[in-house]
Amino acid sequence: MAKWVYTFGDGQAEGRADMKNLLGGKGANLAEMASLGLPVPAGFTITTELCTYFYDNGRTYPAELEAQVDAALAHVEQVMDAKFGDPDNPLLVSVRSGARASMPGMMDTVLNLGLNDTTVEGLIKRSEDARFGYDSYRRFVQMYGNVVLGIEGSHFDQLLEEMKDDRGVDLDTELKAEDWKELVGAFKALVERETGQPFPETPKQQMWGAIGAVFGSWMNKRAITYRKLHDIPASWGTAVNVQAMVFGNMGDDCATGVAFTRDPATGENAFYGEYLVNAQGEDVVAGIRTPQNISLAGKARNQSPLPAMEEVMPELYRQLDGIRERLERHYTDMQDMEFTIQQNKLWMLQTRTGKRTSAASLKIAVDMAREGLIDQTTAISRIDPAQLDQLLHPMLDPKADKQVLTKGLPASPGAASGQIVFTADEAEDWAKRGLKVILARVETSPEDIGGMHVAEGILTSRGGMTSHAAVVARGMGTPCVAGAGGIRIDASAKTLSVGGTVLKEGDTLTLDGATGEVIAGEVPTIQPELTGDFGTLMEWVDKIRRLKVRTNAETPEDARTAIKFGAQGIGLCRTEHMFFDPKRITHMRQMILADSEANRRAALEHLLPYQRQDFVELFTIMRGLPVTVRLLDPPLHEFLPHGDAEVAEVAQAAGTTPDEVRRAAAQLSELNPMLGHRGCRLGITYPEIYEMQAQAIFEAAIEVSKTDGETVVPEIMIPLVGTQAEFDMMKAVIDQVAQKVFAASGTTLTYQVGTMIELPRAALVADAIAKNAEFFSFGTNDLTQTTLGMSRDDSGPFLEVYRDKGIYEKDPFASIDVDGVGALVELAAEKGRKTRPDIKLGICGEHGGDPASVHFCESVNLDYVSCSPYRVPIARLAAAQAVLHSKGSGTA
Amino acid sequence: MAKWVYTFGDGQAEGRADMKNLLGGKGANLAEMASLGLPVPAGFTITTELCTYFYDNGRTYPAELEAQVDAALAHVEQVMDAKFGDPDNPLLVSVRSGARASMPGMMDTVLNLGLNDTTVEGLIKRSEDARFGYDSYRRFVQMYGNVVLGIEGSHFDQLLEEMKDDRGVDLDTELKAEDWKELVGAFKALVERETGQPFPETPKQQMWGAIGAVFGSWMNKRAITYRKLHDIPASWGTAVNVQAMVFGNMGDDCATGVAFTRDPATGENAFYGEYLVNAQGEDVVAGIRTPQNISLAGKARNQSPLPAMEEVMPELYRQLDGIRERLERHYTDMQDMEFTIQQNKLWMLQTRTGKRTSAASLKIAVDMAREGLIDQTTAISRIDPAQLDQLLHPMLDPKADKQVLTKGLPASPGAASGQIVFTADEAEDWAKRGLKVILARVETSPEDIGGMHVAEGILTSRGGMTSHAAVVARGMGTPCVAGAGGIRIDASAKTLSVGGTVLKEGDTLTLDGATGEVIAGEVPTIQPELTGDFGTLMEWVDKIRRLKVRTNAETPEDARTAIKFGAQGIGLCRTEHMFFDPKRITHMRQMILADSEANRRAALEHLLPYQRQDFVELFTIMRGLPVTVRLLDPPLHEFLPHGDAEVAEVAQAAGTTPDEVRRAAAQLSELNPMLGHRGCRLGITYPEIYEMQAQAIFEAAIEVSKTDGETVVPEIMIPLVGTQAEFDMMKAVIDQVAQKVFAASGTTLTYQVGTMIELPRAALVADAIAKNAEFFSFGTNDLTQTTLGMSRDDSGPFLEVYRDKGIYEKDPFASIDVDGVGALVELAAEKGRKTRPDIKLGICGEHGGDPASVHFCESVNLDYVSCSPYRVPIARLAAAQAVLHSKGSGTA
Repeated sequence: MAKWVYTFGDGQAEGRADMKNLLGGKGANLAEMASLGLPVPAGFTITTELCTYFYDNGRTYPAELEAQVDAALAHVEQVMDAKFGDPDNPLLVSVRSGARASMPGMMDTVLNLGLNDTTVEGLIKRSEDARFGYDSYRRFVQMYGNVVLGIEGSHFDQLLEEMKDDRGVDLDTELKAEDWKELVGAFKALVERETGQPFPETPKQQMWGAIGAVFGSWMNKRAITYRKLHDIPASWGTAVNVQAMVFGNMGDDCATGVAFTRDPATGENAFYGEYLVNAQGEDVVAGIRTPQNISLAGKARNQSPLPAMEEVMPELYRQLDGIRERLERHYTDMQDMEFTIQQNKLWMLQTRTGKRTSAASLKIAVDMAREGLIDQTTAISRIDPAQLDQLLHPMLDPKADKQVLTKGLPASPGAASGQIVFTADEAEDWAKRGLKVILARVETSPEDIGGMHVAEGILTSRGGMTSHAAVVARGMGTPCVAGAGGIRIDASAKTLSVGGTVLKEGDTLTLDGATGEVIAGEVPTIQPELTGDFGTLMEWVDKIRRLKVRTNAETPEDARTAIKFGAQGIGLCRTEHMFFDPKRITHMRQMILADSEANRRAALEHLLPYQRQDFVELFTIMRGLPVTVRLLDPPLHEFLPHGDAEVAEVAQAAGTTPDEVRRAAAQLSELNPMLGHRGCRLGITYPEIYEMQAQAIFEAAIEVSKTDGETVVPEIMIPLVGTQAEFDMMKAVIDQVAQKVFAASGTTLTYQVGTMIELPRAALVADAIAKNAEFFSFGTNDLTQTTLGMSRDDSGPFLEVYRDKGIYEKDPFASIDVDGVGALVELAAEKGRKTRPDIKLGICGEHGGDPASVHFCESVNLDYVSCSPYRVPIARLAAAQAVLHSKGSGTA
Repeated sequence: MAKWVYTFGDGQAEGRADMKNLLGGKGANLAEMASLGLPVPAGFTITTELCTYFYDNGRTYPAELEAQVDAALAHVEQVMDAKFGDPDNPLLVSVRSGARASMPGMMDTVLNLGLNDTTVEGLIKRSEDARFGYDSYRRFVQMYGNVVLGIEGSHFDQLLEEMKDDRGVDLDTELKAEDWKELVGAFKALVERETGQPFPETPKQQMWGAIGAVFGSWMNKRAITYRKLHDIPASWGTAVNVQAMVFGNMGDDCATGVAFTRDPATGENAFYGEYLVNAQGEDVVAGIRTPQNISLAGKARNQSPLPAMEEVMPELYRQLDGIRERLERHYTDMQDMEFTIQQNKLWMLQTRTGKRTSAASLKIAVDMAREGLIDQTTAISRIDPAQLDQLLHPMLDPKADKQVLTKGLPASPGAASGQIVFTADEAEDWAKRGLKVILARVETSPEDIGGMHVAEGILTSRGGMTSHAAVVARGMGTPCVAGAGGIRIDASAKTLSVGGTVLKEGDTLTLDGATGEVIAGEVPTIQPELTGDFGTLMEWVDKIRRLKVRTNAETPEDARTAIKFGAQGIGLCRTEHMFFDPKRITHMRQMILADSEANRRAALEHLLPYQRQDFVELFTIMRGLPVTVRLLDPPLHEFLPHGDAEVAEVAQAAGTTPDEVRRAAAQLSELNPMLGHRGCRLGITYPEIYEMQAQAIFEAAIEVSKTDGETVVPEIMIPLVGTQAEFDMMKAVIDQVAQKVFAASGTTLTYQVGTMIELPRAALVADAIAKNAEFFSFGTNDLTQTTLGMSRDDSGPFLEVYRDKGIYEKDPFASIDVDGVGALVELAAEKGRKTRPDIKLGICGEHGGDPASVHFCESVNLDYVSCSPYRVPIARLAAAQAVLHSKGSGTA
């Protein structure tokens, strides 16, 4: 019989930390903490396999589940010495989701479950607090009614407001026990009106309702969106954790908090956390009350006026600090812990690997390796290459003048400027129109995910470092200033007031997520320093990785940036980008409109000096590193003008009529330009174009070799080859030009001629192509388009649906489609090497900077990846992780 | 040392008939005839390998060639008892091309080589005819000057005209020996003026010039065009035959002729041929004099007033008839022979497999098999499937009224109507504009090839059954009436007069190539009878072939035609073609413009009855044969209107504004629609479309099963699948609809769900797709586009160049690209069978009716091919030939 339920509590547990896939992160770690003897309220976890069963079987449970849950519940009752439905000593439980990967706030939770008109009296008896008892009861009815029974929360709020009006009070805290009791009655009546059923009275009935709601919430819209953004497969499912309640809100000897074993923003090795006295756990993360620091150091750092836990509850702080050390040593990683203090007793409610900023991630990994807690390879495995991105982007120029309006919490680092918008929907609308926005909210909620994702930065006026806004922004790598209390946000008026200043929708604002500063207008930024921990990590990385990392660059600026980031050459220099310069485009168009080879050659003569100078600059910057130059690739019509004025201008320059230009453009236009007259097809039909480019490359290489004394070895790449004959013909053209240039200059140099493998046919006949091709560079952008028969430009409308339905888990244009495109890459690599064992193999599509794709490249033993300059460090790290992964070491 | 030269003559030869690849067809057969002891003038063949060497080495020869040629020449001199340059007994030779495949008139020839001022006296002495001697000499100088030295022929003609003017005569025959002698001098002076060099006097010098010219002519424009039209690879090269001259023009005891061992037009087992007394061989095929029949039967059949060879030279006719029988028995195929009679001695100059009409090809093969000369499999191998096409096309309705203007020779069968044009260039121009043309010429020449290729029919006023027009038209399968002497064609005035009627350019004319009738206006046609020899052959074919042959059809008419041609089912029914009917397109457009699923469903409701009726008709016609229905495939924007009026109409019908329709169309438009939102991507995003189609299929199948008692097993095909998930989701939709329809109708039926493999990715993951797919149909049209990254619509401009340069020998959209697309088909077949050994595999692209592609399908063991109705018999034949080929039997 399948085991669907795992218990924990009282110093033992059926689960373990390494059973995350089965028990979810929360359940596995609760079990682990219980086994470690930490004070964990007893409970049980229903497995993720049950979730899969649930969805595979029309949202039903297996027959044997009920008996297993009953047995687990009995275990909890025994450990906690309380009973479900016991009028004197009732067991109350929480029912929470817990997936393999953390999805904060995305799924449903029910607290205080087990309360009814009988058991509330037992709770009152034991807490000696009728107001607390009825407040808990009404919270439960409201939460259950909303989450399980689907009644809108505002209906309950309205009843509460009416009650306060009726009593003539402003604050919840002014309501008395009898008021809460009356409200329970009103809430239950609301439930019966809305659902046609009385509110479920028996705790078991309540529990099964909550379990169903939590499993059901795996498929709610928020959760689906979150999974899509974080590449979490729907097939993983969630577990459900049913755990005895402990209360942080039974009085002033109670508290609740969230703590990190190290600072999640900076990575500093200091105990960092926030707590609230007399509060439920949700209050800390919901941002309703501004929480207090747990340590004195943290209080000082945040300049908080509120007392630290270290002062208020020194013994409990000491206990917690001990647990902190034990957990970090046990897990060998920074932990994010939730705790509750009920009547001076500390209970641990959760531990998990703590989310952290990119900077913190880097610092923690490097520090822990230095401390000997982990080794260098583990440190490398710990860094998410995508997160590293953050560290590589511009920061505010410290020397720039800036008008700081106010300061909030430095919740997620990085600098961002943009126009203010006040709702997530507006953020999405504006971003679609190409505008950069700062999303300003009092606080964010899971509904805001979409808008947060497109915003350059996020600003909230309420909430702490662990508020929803802060946690989500850090995960996204989006700069965030949270809890900026000096700001008043009026979303309906679309204004943001700070001091005397009032900013409106569309005004520009800058956030510095590293300092918490909120700044008027736009502030200049500078490049980050790539030294310190970053430099150390990169040193470790470079010792391990096998793949070389090149860059895709055609401008001197890109080439310089890439060199700074450690690029080992240029893997793709797209020559067509060089022709769009206004000085050149005219000649390019003359060339295209030429009616004879002689006229084409005349126009190309004009382009030659420009093209040669491009290569002189690139070769000079790259100082002897390899440079792969791709010959002209796009269809010629891409260079022709569209507007009337421009057409007239071109006509004049080309000595023809606008009608003639339009006629030529119409004749060149294509139904499917992606599959049209481009790539080496241009070289085959107009060899003179490639001749000019080859001449420019060779002349530039010779010039730079002479001037700089560096050996320039140009690699000339022929695009869109599908047959050996195409390659051979184009190589012959290039070789001929080389001989001419060498003869004219009285010098020679070494060069290579290779091809881009970007058509399925090229992969299939790679053995033949390799006879004369000295390198292959996999053009996975086009190879994806042709292999999948999917135009990148046109796939938006259905690819969205495809990802929703799980047909492609990831965007195949961002991360290589291993089963399809990958299979062709592997085949071509094998066939190429069979013909020419030392053939140089690389990848130069967008995928070159995608960590998963880099792993794939390692697995098929390519020689290098090439990516955009800013992605070079990411690729370096991913390349090292791929080596570790293939060796089975590391934890990534 | 390589052997470049092979001698023949005097009852022996170094070559053999089976050495065609090395010696070319002419050379190999001359050798074979010599070995058989037939009277062949001695000579030697320089191999095709030398041609390859020649082009690989900058048009130079290997050092050892000269010695080998000298030795061969000595052999010829010895056998013929004459010597090169001998003033008394000079050896004269012809230098002719001879490729592996016959390319009549495409390459250069030089005759009478060896004549100079000295040897001409020897020739005169031996022929006792000074006029003949100098005429031969001036012909030689003219031919050599034109062919080898590149001087325009008209320059020589002009000198001849001047001579005739000077002598006051009209005809060449009125010129005397001295006149010819003087003209030789004038010709040689012309050569020296034009080339700056005297005319080469030594026979060896002349011979090497001619050899170079013949090898060089392999790459002339005509030859390249011809090879492209006939799929002859440039790499084959030509051989050069140097052979002792014999003269058919030495007097009235001389003749020259061409004969076929059976009638090349009808296939009748009767000796058929034409000859001219006192003529050179070129005169017969050039159509300058209308030739005489060799047999009395032929003379009677053609109602010729001229005497037959059988009457004039009965003994020589008997000899020739004996050779006819011997050669046919030896070669076991119909032979096309050239002979010359010099002073009452018969010489054989060539034999080769005779070109024949499709009807003759069929009749000869079936007859020979019945006669026991060949077996049935050989008979099958003999028929060119492409030629069979001719027999399947309409003929003139014998009951139709027709105004026969005149009658010519029935040179190539088939009926054709079209508008008259008078030059090949005009034919090409008019055809490009979509017009059907009849090309009317006095006689055709190799320069006319392009125009002949696009013409519906060809009419000449001069020339016989073996004239250029007749031979080429038969090869092309184009109807031709040749030598219609009653017609006067004035190409400059663009008129054609016959009797009292004058037709102008653009007037409509009908030709009956089977009877030779030339008919005014257009005449209705009828379908050919598919019985008799055709039926017999198809019976033999069906006993041998393994591949089933289905048809691509969606209209009842196509389905009926296909059944008549022996189709064994429908392999591809494209449902989108059903939506363009005016009654339906409105609903289709409403569906596309619908802004909600509900509105889409409402529009689909309207389409359902039409779609169901389509399938009822198809299933009824197909009477239980399998029918593969492909669900909607093209992008939706293809159904939207473009013109303003139509947009307004659609807007009104859909209850919206023209602007809204235009906006919707713009939104749906795609940059690369081939790679866009189409195929199952429509089914994934709008499952209701496929639901409607599946419902229509199932309801129709049930209805027909009930009415007809036939078991209808529909095969539903999901297009453009790239992943298993897509297929599974769409199959689930179809299965659900099936269950609903079965429940509603109270009956069930068997059906299959499969997919089109038309994306490289689908081929790569075919093992996964086959888990639930019951059949694969290879959509090689799209698979070619994606594998080669080549849009069929856009590839014209470069594919032409590609074929010229030999990058693709054949159009990959017409004949499957075996190395690329074929590799994917093979891979998918293997993978599919690994998962599901009994998976049904077929092909349904254009390639299904292409014989070479059918061979490929046999080689990878597919179950069926599907092609257009008229190609079904071709595919049946090709399928049988493929079996024979794979067994290594047959001669194809």
